[in-house]
Amino acid sequence: MSRAPYVSVPVRSASANHRLGAADIVASLSAEIQAGHLPAGCRLPPVRVLEKQLGLSKNTVQAAYDELVARGLLEARPRDGLYVHAPSLTAPLKPSVTTPPVPRLRPVPAVFQTSPRPDTVKLSTVMIDPELLPRDQLAECMRSVLHAPGLDATYDYQGYPPLRAAIAERLRRRGMQVSAEQVIVTVGSQQGLDIVARALEVRRIALENPLYPYARLLFESHGLQTVPLTVDPFSGIDLEQWENELRVRRPGLLYAITSFQNPTGYSYSSHELESLLELAARYDIGLLEDDWGSDMLSDGEYRPALRLLGGPDVLYLNSFTKKLWPTLRVGYLVAPSALVPALVAGKRLSTLGSPPILEATITAFLERGYYDTHLRRLQAALDARYQACLETLRELMPEDVRWTTPGGGPTLWLEVPRYISLRALGRALLDRGVEITLDQETAFLGEPHLNGFRVSYAYSNEPTLRRALSIVAETLSALRDHSLHARG
Amino acid sequence: MSRAPYVSVPVRSASANHRLGAADIVASLSAEIQAGHLPAGCRLPPVRVLEKQLGLSKNTVQAAYDELVARGLLEARPRDGLYVHAPSLTAPLKPSVTTPPVPRLRPVPAVFQTSPRPDTVKLSTVMIDPELLPRDQLAECMRSVLHAPGLDATYDYQGYPPLRAAIAERLRRRGMQVSAEQVIVTVGSQQGLDIVARALEVRRIALENPLYPYARLLFESHGLQTVPLTVDPFSGIDLEQWENELRVRRPGLLYAITSFQNPTGYSYSSHELESLLELAARYDIGLLEDDWGSDMLSDGEYRPALRLLGGPDVLYLNSFTKKLWPTLRVGYLVAPSALVPALVAGKRLSTLGSPPILEATITAFLERGYYDTHLRRLQAALDARYQACLETLRELMPEDVRWTTPGGGPTLWLEVPRYISLRALGRALLDRGVEITLDQETAFLGEPHLNGFRVSYAYSNEPTLRRALSIVAETLSALRDHSLHARG
Repeated sequence: MSRAPYVSVPVRSASANHRLGAADIVASLSAEIQAGHLPAGCRLPPVRVLEKQLGLSKNTVQAAYDELVARGLLEARPRDGLYVHAPSLTAPLKPSVTTPPVPRLRPVPAVFQTSPRPDTVKLSTVMIDPELLPRDQLAECMRSVLHAPGLDATYDYQGYPPLRAAIAERLRRRGMQVSAEQVIVTVGSQQGLDIVARALEVRRIALENPLYPYARLLFESHGLQTVPLTVDPFSGIDLEQWENELRVRRPGLLYAITSFQNPTGYSYSSHELESLLELAARYDIGLLEDDWGSDMLSDGEYRPALRLLGGPDVLYLNSFTKKLWPTLRVGYLVAPSALVPALVAGKRLSTLGSPPILEATITAFLERGYYDTHLRRLQAALDARYQACLETLRELMPEDVRWTTPGGGPTLWLEVPRYISLRALGRALLDRGVEITLDQETAFLGEPHLNGFRVSYAYSNEPTLRRALSIVAETLSALRDHSLHARG
Repeated sequence: MSRAPYVSVPVRSASANHRLGAADIVASLSAEIQAGHLPAGCRLPPVRVLEKQLGLSKNTVQAAYDELVARGLLEARPRDGLYVHAPSLTAPLKPSVTTPPVPRLRPVPAVFQTSPRPDTVKLSTVMIDPELLPRDQLAECMRSVLHAPGLDATYDYQGYPPLRAAIAERLRRRGMQVSAEQVIVTVGSQQGLDIVARALEVRRIALENPLYPYARLLFESHGLQTVPLTVDPFSGIDLEQWENELRVRRPGLLYAITSFQNPTGYSYSSHELESLLELAARYDIGLLEDDWGSDMLSDGEYRPALRLLGGPDVLYLNSFTKKLWPTLRVGYLVAPSALVPALVAGKRLSTLGSPPILEATITAFLERGYYDTHLRRLQAALDARYQACLETLRELMPEDVRWTTPGGGPTLWLEVPRYISLRALGRALLDRGVEITLDQETAFLGEPHLNGFRVSYAYSNEPTLRRALSIVAETLSALRDHSLHARG
């Protein structure tokens, strides 16, 4: 920066006429300097700047500056600029500007405090191995959108209309009645949860327990009370407990991840879906279905869903994040038509809109038929990894370890005996380069009824997964021996 | 869809051994059917699906199905599938599934209920004419990022690190001490406001009055109390009123748009910036500066800012939305290092992350020097449009209409006499294809102290603007005559 920053000065017209004159500049600046607002040594805006700012001729501004120099208020420094010459009367030089306090913020939830370690095997991630995802085809679609129609200068707040139409068409193929007007594109499904949470009238929400920690924290950060509904990945949902909670607490909404529930990996049976619809009708509770997982199961498009069985009043959430590309951040919410304006208003408060270039890229990907082909390949790859994972577990795990058989998809639940401390297990595994989720405090509402963690066969390839599971098995055995020794 | 969707059935192992057997399938399905959970006519998963789901051989699943057919519980329909044969004992066919209620949401704020009319001249928009923006250069940068390094599979929650570094470097050139670790990339500056609002400990915020309606609604939607601070585009900020409000109400944060305040278009003088810093220090109030406008003024990089004068504890917000491309949705928040984790946590709750492909594109645009060149061209174009707008106003406007002279940038404030009803004016203008903001109820906290609207010379080219302003002038005269007539 070659020269000092100049100050901003307000120049006001003394009269009601429209055109400022040199006299106005002289009067305004004199008043500012004499009031001590512009201390000695301040640089004034150059003539070319002030003339443009005020819409005056160069001569007018120059005349005003000349007058101020003549009055001894300004000083011209050759090849530099105009500076305030003397402080007002005998006022001392102003002290350096005061500094404001640091704004005070709420504490950071513990779940956000973990530092990622890039070299560890992430055994509990819900992400898909990027090697299984169509990076190049997607880039090709984006290039073609950039070529034509090019970057859009405006957006539809609700989301790129052709993408909304394509999503509705896909859901109709699964038997759901959905129109493009009922689809809201969101910045990942997380924004879908966020805008629903903002809009709810009854500030009480029923959640699966355990639950995806970011969903729980999001709802709590919006001041929603939570009603826990027990899910067990081995025995399913506890309908009696659910009915008791719903009858007594009467939440405004029930949020359910019906395929590959996060974190348990549990998928609802048809009977459970129907029971849930009956409970919702009986106790007047709205439903929000998160269907992120069904696309990852072979022939998953035939699986029933709350939105299919329960009709258009069920809110339905899904995204392209896991299955297509993790960093595009494109999700969608399907809502009854009457609720769309309130939800779009929430999106506008949150981010105004979402980038249409990304939404147009995904539209091209869908329209070319790439997505269906990709899903079939992805499902086949996940099936193979799932089988390999099951075989490795059978071969390596100690007798008293159990796991679920979700039938494919990205993850299963591995339950270890109660005498194993998950925290100790997690630490020991991390020492050997394997990371498992240890968010029991956040995932469980109340005392955990499970003692296990999510195993992802979708993120790690077979050799990596086998190595990680060997380390898990060895560590479990070591901890068991240690525990027996301590008790004996 | 050629065949009926099949039901999802849970198959549980009867014993603690690891491998499911045909007997487990038979037992589980028999129990489901006899409990009435799978009514007659339900389609069962095909053998190939169930074998994959359970990780069993085809023979095991086929054996289980054969046994269930033999027991009369299932029925095989050739070339179709397996169906439940009889309901449990004498149970009637289940009625159609119940439908849940529509979730109840809060009402939509009125400001979101206006329907956009594409053919009107948007005289009050804060957007820039897309013709002034570098669409092709930006697309070229995106293509080059797609070529190498390509789409990123992961993101930094805080934002693409090279973009954070480039932003910090630009701000340092303006004299601010900023490091890349203090920059959080957001989905437009709206997300910056959102994550600050989420995180504030003291749930009370001081706002300029009038204010950008989406900011006010956002803060209110987060349950923040608002403290109004009067801004007048002709006389500036009312320091006495500000101090009274701040002393009595003690908000946790003060949000100020210091250049081209929205909606008044007012820019703070250096003295006002310094006074604001003193008030913040005296009453222990954190500051959030929104600096969206200074880049649009010629030589604007030399303008002082709260963040420059007040140091790194001032939160600072800016974006590329208006100046570079409106639909990329890339903004940024600069925060004291100690606050970064809490703000990034808020971003993760809101949208998890933001798309790195867009952030890498902007990084390329900055690194090639395109942005500086573009800003100079944009500023020159805005200067020319500003001068033309001033001349048109001087030529056309009735005597009793006043306007501000902000010195360039995107907008000025046009104040009409009190006898003109803004609502009547807005309706009459809309009939003639000109739209002005009529969000007095939302923009003003309390009774409006102004009777005018924002005039954007940045969005419309000269002929369009001249036509729109002619219509405004004619409509004002007609309304004045009508008013005089009514009084006379």
